[in-house]
Order: sequence, then structure tokens, then C-alpha cells
Amino acid sequence: PDADGGSYDIVHDASSPAAGDCCAQQSAARHNWEMNYQEAAIYLQEGENNDKFFTHPKNAKALAAYLFAHNHLFYLMELSTALLLLLLSLCEAPAVPMLRLGIFVHATLELFALIVVVFELSMKMRWLGFQTFIRHKRTMVKTCVLFVQFIEAIVVLVRQTSHVRITRALRCIFLVDCRYCGGVRRNLRQIFQSLPPFIDILLLLLFFMVIFAILGFYLFSPNHSDPYFNTLENSLVNLFVLLTTSNFPDVMMPSYARNPWSCVFFIVYLSIELYFIMNLLLAVVFDTFNDIEKRKFKSLLLHKRTAIQHAYGLLVTKQRPSGISFKHFEGLLRFYKPRMCARERYLTFKALNQSNTPLVSLKDFYNFYEVVGLKWKAKRNREHWFDDLPRTAFLIFKGINILVKSRVFQYTMYTVVAVNGIWILVETFMLQGGNFFSRNVPWSYIVFLTIYGVELLLKTTGLGPVEYLSSGWNLFDFSVTLFAFLGLMALAFDMEPFYFIVVLRPLQLLRLFKLKKRYRNVLDTMFELFPRMASLGLTLLIFYYCFAIVGMEFFAGVVYPNCCNTSTVADSYRWVNHTVGNKTVVEEGYYYLNNFDNILNSFVTLFELTVVNDWYIIMEGVTSQTTHWSRLYFMIFYIVTMVVMTIIVAFILDAFVFRMNYTRKNQDSEEDNGIVLEKEISKEEVIGIIELYKRSSAATETAQLQKIVLQMDKYGQMSAVFLGRRSRTKSDLSMKMYEEEIQEWYEEHSRKEESQTPLQEPASASNSSLKPLSLRQRSQTVI
Amino acid sequence: PDADGGSYDIVHDASSPAAGDCCAQQSAARHNWEMNYQEAAIYLQEGENNDKFFTHPKNAKALAAYLFAHNHLFYLMELSTALLLLLLSLCEAPAVPMLRLGIFVHATLELFALIVVVFELSMKMRWLGFQTFIRHKRTMVKTCVLFVQFIEAIVVLVRQTSHVRITRALRCIFLVDCRYCGGVRRNLRQIFQSLPPFIDILLLLLFFMVIFAILGFYLFSPNHSDPYFNTLENSLVNLFVLLTTSNFPDVMMPSYARNPWSCVFFIVYLSIELYFIMNLLLAVVFDTFNDIEKRKFKSLLLHKRTAIQHAYGLLVTKQRPSGISFKHFEGLLRFYKPRMCARERYLTFKALNQSNTPLVSLKDFYNFYEVVGLKWKAKRNREHWFDDLPRTAFLIFKGINILVKSRVFQYTMYTVVAVNGIWILVETFMLQGGNFFSRNVPWSYIVFLTIYGVELLLKTTGLGPVEYLSSGWNLFDFSVTLFAFLGLMALAFDMEPFYFIVVLRPLQLLRLFKLKKRYRNVLDTMFELFPRMASLGLTLLIFYYCFAIVGMEFFAGVVYPNCCNTSTVADSYRWVNHTVGNKTVVEEGYYYLNNFDNILNSFVTLFELTVVNDWYIIMEGVTSQTTHWSRLYFMIFYIVTMVVMTIIVAFILDAFVFRMNYTRKNQDSEEDNGIVLEKEISKEEVIGIIELYKRSSAATETAQLQKIVLQMDKYGQMSAVFLGRRSRTKSDLSMKMYEEEIQEWYEEHSRKEESQTPLQEPASASNSSLKPLSLRQRSQTVI
Repeated sequence: PDADGGSYDIVHDASSPAAGDCCAQQSAARHNWEMNYQEAAIYLQEGENNDKFFTHPKNAKALAAYLFAHNHLFYLMELSTALLLLLLSLCEAPAVPMLRLGIFVHATLELFALIVVVFELSMKMRWLGFQTFIRHKRTMVKTCVLFVQFIEAIVVLVRQTSHVRITRALRCIFLVDCRYCGGVRRNLRQIFQSLPPFIDILLLLLFFMVIFAILGFYLFSPNHSDPYFNTLENSLVNLFVLLTTSNFPDVMMPSYARNPWSCVFFIVYLSIELYFIMNLLLAVVFDTFNDIEKRKFKSLLLHKRTAIQHAYGLLVTKQRPSGISFKHFEGLLRFYKPRMCARERYLTFKALNQSNTPLVSLKDFYNFYEVVGLKWKAKRNREHWFDDLPRTAFLIFKGINILVKSRVFQYTMYTVVAVNGIWILVETFMLQGGNFFSRNVPWSYIVFLTIYGVELLLKTTGLGPVEYLSSGWNLFDFSVTLFAFLGLMALAFDMEPFYFIVVLRPLQLLRLFKLKKRYRNVLDTMFELFPRMASLGLTLLIFYYCFAIVGMEFFAGVVYPNCCNTSTVADSYRWVNHTVGNKTVVEEGYYYLNNFDNILNSFVTLFELTVVNDWYIIMEGVTSQTTHWSRLYFMIFYIVTMVVMTIIVAFILDAFVFRMNYTRKNQDSEEDNGIVLEKEISKEEVIGIIELYKRSSAATETAQLQKIVLQMDKYGQMSAVFLGRRSRTKSDLSMKMYEEEIQEWYEEHSRKEESQTPLQEPASASNSSLKPLSLRQRSQTVI
Repeated sequence: PDADGGSYDIVHDASSPAAGDCCAQQSAARHNWEMNYQEAAIYLQEGENNDKFFTHPKNAKALAAYLFAHNHLFYLMELSTALLLLLLSLCEAPAVPMLRLGIFVHATLELFALIVVVFELSMKMRWLGFQTFIRHKRTMVKTCVLFVQFIEAIVVLVRQTSHVRITRALRCIFLVDCRYCGGVRRNLRQIFQSLPPFIDILLLLLFFMVIFAILGFYLFSPNHSDPYFNTLENSLVNLFVLLTTSNFPDVMMPSYARNPWSCVFFIVYLSIELYFIMNLLLAVVFDTFNDIEKRKFKSLLLHKRTAIQHAYGLLVTKQRPSGISFKHFEGLLRFYKPRMCARERYLTFKALNQSNTPLVSLKDFYNFYEVVGLKWKAKRNREHWFDDLPRTAFLIFKGINILVKSRVFQYTMYTVVAVNGIWILVETFMLQGGNFFSRNVPWSYIVFLTIYGVELLLKTTGLGPVEYLSSGWNLFDFSVTLFAFLGLMALAFDMEPFYFIVVLRPLQLLRLFKLKKRYRNVLDTMFELFPRMASLGLTLLIFYYCFAIVGMEFFAGVVYPNCCNTSTVADSYRWVNHTVGNKTVVEEGYYYLNNFDNILNSFVTLFELTVVNDWYIIMEGVTSQTTHWSRLYFMIFYIVTMVVMTIIVAFILDAFVFRMNYTRKNQDSEEDNGIVLEKEISKEEVIGIIELYKRSSAATETAQLQKIVLQMDKYGQMSAVFLGRRSRTKSDLSMKMYEEEIQEWYEEHSRKEESQTPLQEPASASNSSLKPLSLRQRSQTVI
């Protein structure tokens, strides 16, 4: 019982400080219930985060560690150590000039960060237990990497010089393992799952490449003026580059000049490889992606369902087996969402409760995740913010309101924006070079800004600031106008570094796209996609990081002006400063700027490689300074980015096609304001809950609820109506799209469960029927 | 009655010569029935070809013209005139040097071809009638183009010199209008239907381009060493080119050299435009494409159904209103498929007839198109071709058969192919330049060819030549081995022009891809897609033709070696011949080869523009020799090819995803041998039909059927089993995929029809109930 008491304290301290002062009086039963609430909340969290249940904390010590490792402070620590480790490569040699640090400094920083990671891992081990810890693959890889990094950091400290540390590329795993980088992990998983079909088609691609390389070698190597096919290796490399179209007309030209019909070889090659197999690649990835998305959605849905079943089992009592009472539901929410106020807890309960009984049945409880995200607000009786104002003011504001909402006003503004756009274009066209930022502010700028300002003012007063800013488009208008105003300030007060703001004016024109439904659709989808896109971008950056480290270790400092005079791409690296007459002419190839001299340069170079055009110039430059094998680095990078890019394309395709199918299916319900739920609470109900809270002496909750009662009294109402609102997620859309299939999945799932545990009733009412709830069971035996 | 008699004769002569000698005795009723058969056949053809019913021939004269204009001779004439007109551009100035013809010659040829087109059009007018002819849009456009071409051809003849004839680009319409180019018309329609959403997104793309152009101009024009952004026009053009990535690192380099952070501008631009909006474009087109494909499938299905209803109405008699008897069905098939033999006609009838009555009901008749395509063959009783041979020979062949079908043999062959592949690779790698085609044939070549030859021999003898060649893969093996053998001959007998065959050897390696199911799937789909891909390719070629003509008219002869020394791309056009020491060094830019000097060169240049890489060099070269406005040509071409290419990508995506979904849905029925139907015919049935034919004194049919009876007698069978087989089409797959929806469509369709013609019973039995059958009605009144 000693350990148990300890666990209890931790539980208590971490999550329910509000009830802290009444600890002493709590009975053993209450004790036990708190435990159940906590565990149910953990199950629900696991369900939401798609954490597997085998990592569920198994005893009090594990629970303590679990709670310690599952809060935002800990997550932030994880994230910041990972970022610190990644950012170190800015300072380690070859460093960005301005950020160079001594070896002693950065090695110490690294050691410090690694020690923090050790601490994090030890907490995780405490939570998972040694057995589970070892079985958890990602954590094991992380531990190994940590070990290697540790040794290397110490070696660097001892030797006081950096060796070839390619393993730094593995630092990414610390970032990937962060709680906040779940999206990145998901993307990586998706990439790995798409790999097998991808590789199959890639082999087909490479196969044709080899065949054509042999063919090309036989056909074109007799032509001695053709440098592209003189050896089989060159032939292969150039056909690889040709696949990216990067050297296209050039690679054909020598043979084309000799015999015009040789173009057939290139046309056939490109038609097969580029236009057919590459698209096939996209098709295969897209198809796999589609399939994976659906399977993922299914497994997450079923996982959540299981989590809800576990939680439900912990919350029903033997006395009332048909459902969860508000008391227990409230206890659960206290742990699951500590920030939720009493009113919201009750509203969530009401929203879940479809029947009119005081208990939430399992069937109702299945909607937990859909309902718990709702934000509740009292439904306003007044339509406008100015309804309470005196008559004259009301009329004025009402007039503005009608004006602002009128079509005429809107179209006038569109016209103004369009005129402004044309104006800017013409104005810019008239300026040909020279100093555009003249002292005097152009009058057109002031005129248009004034119009926008007046519009903004009218809209805010007519709609009320809250309603005005609740629309994304208005927010956009507002910020662009604000920027334009700042730009004006910059012009007026001559603050040079802010001149660029002036340049953002044309963004105002984006408003014109509100006019057409398709654009609204596209832009809305764009905003919905943004989080996923960002995580895909981050995934790409992680790949960049790995390649940047490797590139820096091998190619730092190998390219410089006039470095590659022996290679075929010498021109691009030339930097000559010769005098013609009395003028100095600089012939600059600039490509020496695309180097791996520090991590920022490497990133830019890798972006250029991603864009693919003329990447072979960079490759050949580096190759001419190192060995043939360097080409492997560039080719592998190309293939990796091809994978990621294909996934990105597949993702965008999938998301848009899904969205458009969705809108096609639900054309009637045009207006999409997210998910809204309306619930009415009567005064008696509120008073009933206040009684409940008073009994458990929760002062803040009681006070909150009493405020509602007071307000009802003030307006003389017997009940209050609340609106729960949240934005629609992809999951909601999928739920609606796959409606029929979901029922099948559920049935199949419950059938499977039954067959696995044939002795157990599926939705059992007794408290002890569900198996895996070790914590609760143990705490019951303690009583 | 005069015209009617005439019409009858035409009908008769054109389509049923077999029954020609018994004309005189035919009764008026028979007369009338022949008419009905003919019209029903026309309806079914219209249904199959998706011809609208308003072009249905309305009277006897129209029918004669219809029959004249609907046979392969006429189609071939159409096609060859169209091709002749298109090919004329090879000979007209600027002509391909070898094919240059005098103005008098090619103008006369053109006039001749145009006169043939006039004849074709007049036939069409006769068939459609003046009213319908004018309403038919495509035909009207064709007439106008014809008129213009006619005038121009005469002008050329009179002036004896060619003027700027951009209208030649319109010649494509003659090809597009050909019956054989239905696929191209379908593609063009699809492209036009996809245009509206495409243009929307294109505008978004251009909008961002303009914003960034203004931004770029403000940011980078103060840098005088940056030639890319010095004017707004340059800024716009270079960002357009940047959209195609064609000038990527270069356009960034001058500003990047000055301030490393300027790369942000380019990265943001490319991320938004290239990686987001361009993919959006694909998504939107793909979505529209999907939608159109399904709607097209639906409308075609319903169109076919209506056609079948029309035909059915013409074939049922008042006496037997519940279905079509074999006599009438046979009459229909005589017109619909004149080449079908009597046995096949009866088998088709049996296959349609689901009930055991002697009549085919409307419900059964709906399957007409699915059944009529089947190829019927007697089911063999013998398993192998050698079953009838003497015992010893049988055993030997049986042994070979077992060997050839064994896994060991197959995998041995795969190993041989793999070894051969590696061998070729190593061999080629060892050869470094020089004359590879030495006098003596390499022994490895002979060894591998011998192995392949033995394999081929074993397989043909073991499986029998017919079965061996019925598999596509075996056919492929066979032809590659044959080519390799021809190559050996070429080597042995020293025939230089055929050396290239030797180079095709590596194609043998493609066999390795049989090993994996995914490849089989991919390659099968590839073969299925081939016709559509070819028609898409042809569509692209038609666009090429238009642009090539315009390009030749404006840009012929403008680029030549050292032409563009004033432009920024001068290097690529340079051709310098200078002496270093005692060696002549040729500095060759080669880009002057990418010109519009004749139509073949133009096609190659346009292909290079399609591939997009370095296209701006061609654009700038031409621009520097002409005006700024030339850029419009190149940009429009880019956008047009972008549309076509996006459609191609969408098509491939759609086809593959569809196919994969299909295989996922039907995983059980792994083996896919196309559609197979088995039907048994008893001896009595055959004798019954012989009687029928005898009565109508059709000698050839009677003889054919008697042969079957003889064969049955020979083997002592009372019945014979026949197998009907055809390959699975996309339409079959779609039928299966949309099974449920199709039923809805049918119901909706019949409901709509009922509401349109409320007085008419939907599946009426009486001969005169269906309205639009003017021909039959008129012929009935004659009787």
C-alpha cells in the first residue's frame, strides 16, 4: 500500500489541484474512483493520439512517469533539445561564418543536450518498463543513436578536433521522436509504406534506362564529337540526367547535328520514361496513398472505439450498469481536460446523452471524441452588437450594417481592388529602373489606402469587431490593410529596411478571388491542408538536413571560382575579370555559389537540386573535384526527393479530389460553418449540478455555475441555450464519406473481439469485466 | 412509290447480295421486313458509335447516302484525303529539302484533295438533309475551312507564289472529322470540357506570377548586374520561364551572389507556383476528368439502351409481341454484321436468349452489344494438339509439354535471361569506343541465341503453335528471338544497315518482369491503354501540326549559326571555327538546329519545347531575331502542351487507379481471360435452322450448317459445345464497378422517358408504337 499511496499523491498533485484541500477526508472508495477517472482519461488520450495500448502504464510508478512525460513542459523540453542538437550544425565546422563557435563550446553544448535526452529516455523507460521499452522500435533506434552521438561528442572533446561525423545526420531522429512531430512520423510511415510499389516501378524505370544506355552507347559512341555517350558510364549518367530533362536538347544536339533521325532515340526514350513510367510512378503512389489513408482512418477509428470501451468499463458502477452518471463523467473530464469549466463539462455530458435518462450509455459514449472538442458559448439573443445602444445610434449602425452587407458595396470594393491592381501594374511598368522609393509618397497610394481604411472602419462598426474578425477573409483584408498602412509609414518616415512592405500591396488583389466559388473552395481547402502541408515540408527538411550533413562532410570547400576548368561544365564555374578597352568586364558563372560550405548554403544547393533544372552542372562540378562516386550522392538525393515530391503530389491530389467529391455529394448543404450543436439547460438542472459540486466542495465550479443562474434570473429565463461549435476536420468528412462502410467495420470489429474473448460480454456493465485494466484492478484489491 | 422502289434496290445491292437471286419472288411483306432489318441495324450502329439519332437517315435517298458514307472504303478515302492535305506541308515552301515540289504541283494536289472533300461533304449533306447539316456544328466548321482553303489554293495557283498561309493550320480539321479518328475527337472534347476549371487555376497561377513579378522588379532591379529583373517585362517573362524551372538556378544567381537571403523570394515563388498551384491544376483536371469519364460512360450506356429499344421496336411482330424470333434476329445480323456466318448468328441468338422460349425478349436484347462481339469456336475435346498422334510420339510430346510447363524450366529460363543481361552489360562496359561490330560474331551471342532458339522450339512443340502464340508474352519472346536471329544474320553476312537489330538484344530482359504480379498488372494495363494513349498522342500531334505551321510561317529561317550575338543566349547559337596551335577547334552551340525551317524540324523543335528544359534559349533566340511578340507564341504553346500533358497524366492516373481498384474489388477472380460464354447446340436445333434457311433459299448458310451436322454425325454426338470469347474492355470493367449505380441510371432513364412520352408504353409489342421510325412507317404505308 505504500507505493500505492505514493502513486495517488502524484496523480493528485499533477492533475487536480483544485480539489487539493479536501484530500484528508476522502474515503477509500473516492480514492479508488479518482484512480479510475485518471486511467479512463489516459485511455482516451491514448485513443486520441493513436498510442498503442501496450504502452499503457502498468503500475503506480509507471503512472507517475507517464504523467511526468505527458505534459507540454516535457514536450517543449524534448523539442528544444532536439532543435538545439540540430541547430548545432550551424556552429560546428564547416560553420556559417557569423555563428562559428569553438570546438569546446559546441561539443559541451552537444553533451548537455545529449544528457537531457538521456534523462528523457530514462523517464520513458520508467513509464514503459524495461520489457516494453526494448520492444518499442523507435525508442530503441533513438537509444542507439544517442549512444553513438555521446561517444562521438566525447571523442571530439578529447581530440579537440572534429572528425568526419556523418552520424550527425542521424540527429534528426531526436526531432522526429518529439510528441509535437507526430505529423512528421505519420508522413515518414506513409513514405515507407509507399516504398515497395515505388521501388518496383523505379526498377522498371532503371531497367529501361540501362537498355537505352547500351543502345545509346552502340549508336552514338562512333561519333567522336559526342561527349555524352563515349563510354557506357557516361551514357548511363546522361540518360539519368535526361530522365530529369535537365540536359535535354543539349544531350541530343551532337548526334542530331550528324543525323536528324537520331532524335527518334531521344523522343522514344523520353516518351517511355518521362511521360509514361514517371506518371505510372505517380499513379502507383497515389493509389497506395489512397489505400493507406483509408486503412489508417479505419484503424484509428477502431482504436478510438476500443479506447472508449476501456474508459467506459472503468466508469460504470455495479449499481447502475447501464451507463455513466454525470458525477463520474465529470471526474473523467477533470483529468482528460483539466481546463474545461464546469458549465462546459455539463454541456458535453448533455450533448453526449441522446436518451433522456441521467446516464450516458456506451452507444452514446462512442461519440465522445466528436463532442468533447466543441467550444460552448451561450447563444446570443441579440443579433448585432449594437442592439442595446440607444435608438439613434442603433439606426446609424443598422444602416452601416445593411450597407456593408449589401452586394453593391461588395462589388464596389471589388472594382476598387481591381482598379488598384491595374494601377499598380501600370505604375510599375512606367518606372523603368532607377530609385522607385522617392521621397514623396505617390498620391494613388494614399487614395487607395484611404478607401481600404474606410471600408475596414465601416465593416468593423457595422458587423462588430468580433464578428468581423471571425471570418478568415476579413482577417486577411485587415492584415493586408495594416501592412499597407505600415508601408505608408515607412515611406513617410523614410525607414528604408521596411520598404519591402510597400511591395506587398498587390496582395490586396487576392481578395478578387473571393468572387468565384471554385477559388473559395480551393483556398479553403488550402487552409485546411496547411497543417499537413507544413508537416510534409518539415519531413522534406529533415531529409534535407541528413543530406546537408553528408554533403558538408564530403564536399565542403570543393567548389570555388574557376575550380572546374577540366570538366564539361567549366563555363558555369568561371569567374574572369578582364579588361576590354577601358572597361572591366566580369564574366561570372556563379555556380560556385551552389556549394556545401555551410549548412545554409547546403540547404539552398539542395533546394536547387530538388527543382532539378541544371542540377547536373552542380553534380559535374563536384564530381570533377572529387571522384566519380560523388554522383551517387546526387542521384540518391534525386530519387529521395522524387519519392517525397510524389507523395506531396499524391497528397494534394487526394485531398482535393476527396474534398471535391465531398462537396459533390453534399451539394445541398452549401454553407459550411463547421459542426454546430445546440443544447438547452434549464435552471433546475444547473441548481442540481451546483448541489453536486457543493457536496464535493469544489468552490470554483460552484461559483461559475452560480453565475449562470444569476444571469438567468436577470433576464427572467427558465433556461439558457448554448451553442457548441468546432471546425470540421478531415476525420469528420471521412466519417460522412464512408458512412456505410464504417458500420461494416464496426460490426466486423466487434465480431473479431467477441471471437478473441469469447467468455466476455461485449458491452458488459459490471465493473470488473474488462480485462486489461490492471491499475484499477490492483487498486480495488488494495481496498 | 418510285423513289421507294429505288431506295429498296440500293438497300438490297449494298448489303445483302447473298439473297440477290431470289428478289423477284419476294412478297411486299418480305420487302418491308428487309427495310426494318436495315433500319434496326442502323440504329444499333448509331448506338455503338454514339451517333446522335437526329442524324438518322430520314428517307430513302438519305438512306442511300448513309450507306454510301458508312463503309470502310469511304472512311479510307476520307482518311487518305485528310492525310494527303496534311502531308502537303512537307512539300510546300518551306519544304523538307528532299521533298520540295513546284508550286504548281502541290497546289494542284491540294485542289484535288479539296475537291474530294467537297464530294464527301455533299454525300453527307444528302444523308443528313440541309436542315440537319446546318445544325451539325463540326460539319459546318469543316465547310467553312474548306471554303477558305479552296480560295487560298486557287490564289496560290494564280499568283504562282505562296503567301502567308497560316490557315493551313486548320487542315487538321479534315483529319479530326474522319470516322477513324473518333478517339481524337473524344480527346478534344475532353480537353475542352476540362478547360473551364483549368483556366480558373491558370488565372490564379498567372495572378501570383504578376504579383511576384512586381515584387521581383522592386527588389532586384536596383542590382545592375542582374539582367533578369531590369524591366517589368523581363521580370514577368523570367518568372514565367521560372515556372517551368527552365532557368532556375541562373535566374537567382546574380541576386543570390549579392545577398544570400534573396533566395527566399525564389523558394517561396517556386513553392507556391510550382509545388502547390501546378499540382492543384493536376488535381482539378484529374477530378474533372474522373467526373467526365463517368458521365460519358453513363450517357453512352443510355444511348445504347435507347438504340436497342428502337431496334427492338422494329423487329417484334404484332403476332408475337413478347420478343424477336430467330428469323428476324438473323435478318438484323445480316445487315449489322454481314461477315458473320450462320452458325455464329444462331449462337449469338442463343447466347442472348436467357429464357427457353424461342423468342428474345427486350430484357435479353439489352445485352446485345455485350454478346455480339463474342468470337465463337467449337470447344475442343482434345487437350493437346498431339492427342491424335501415335503412342510414342504422344509420349514424347507429352514429356515436352510437361517440361515446358514446369516451374523449373521457367525459372531456368529466367536465370538464363538474367545472366544474358549481365553478360551484355559487362561486355558493353569492356568495349570502350572503337568499332564494336567486328567481323567475327561473339560466341556468347551464339550461345544465348541457341538457348533461346531451343526454348522456342520446345515451347512450340510442347504447346502447339496456336496455343504458344495466343499468349502475348510468348509472342513477344518469339519476335525478340526472331530479331536476335536477324541480327546474327546481319553480323554474319556483314549487312551494315541492319546492325541496329543487334542492339535490340537487351529487350529480351523485359521477360524478367513477368516474374512479379505488379509488373504483369502494369504491363497488361499498358497494353489495354495503348489505343487510348495512341489517340492522345495523335491529339498532341495535331496540336503540334497547328503550331508547326504557324511557326514556319513566322519563324522559318530566322535562326542560323551565330545569329543571335546580341541576345543573352548568344553562346548557344555560336558556331566558331578557330585554330589553336595546329588543331582546328569547333565551338558549336548547336541551338541553331532547333529551328522552324521545315515541318520536320518544327516538330523536333516543338518536342523540345514540350520537354520544357532550356526552352527559353529557343524562345530568346527567335525573339532576338524577330519581335518581343514572338514570345507569345512560345508561351501559348507551353500552356497548350501543359493542358494536353495534364490530361495525359490525368488519364494515366485515372486508368491505373481504376484498374487497381478493380483488381482490389475482384481479388478472387485472379485469372482474367476476358469474357467467355459457353453454349451447347443440339442436332435438332441445327436441322431446324437449316430448314429455315432452306425456305429462304440461302445456299451458303445451309451448306455451312450442314457441315456442322456432318461433324456431329462423324463423332456420334447429339450436340456440340461452342465457346464465345472476347477480351474485356474498359466498358465491361466500368459495368462491374458501377453495377449498383447503373440500375439507378436505368430506372431514372426509363422514368424520364415515360414522362416525355406519357401515352406510349415503354416496351410496347406492337410494331407501330415507336415514334421516330419514319422509314419503316413510310414503307408500311406503301404496302
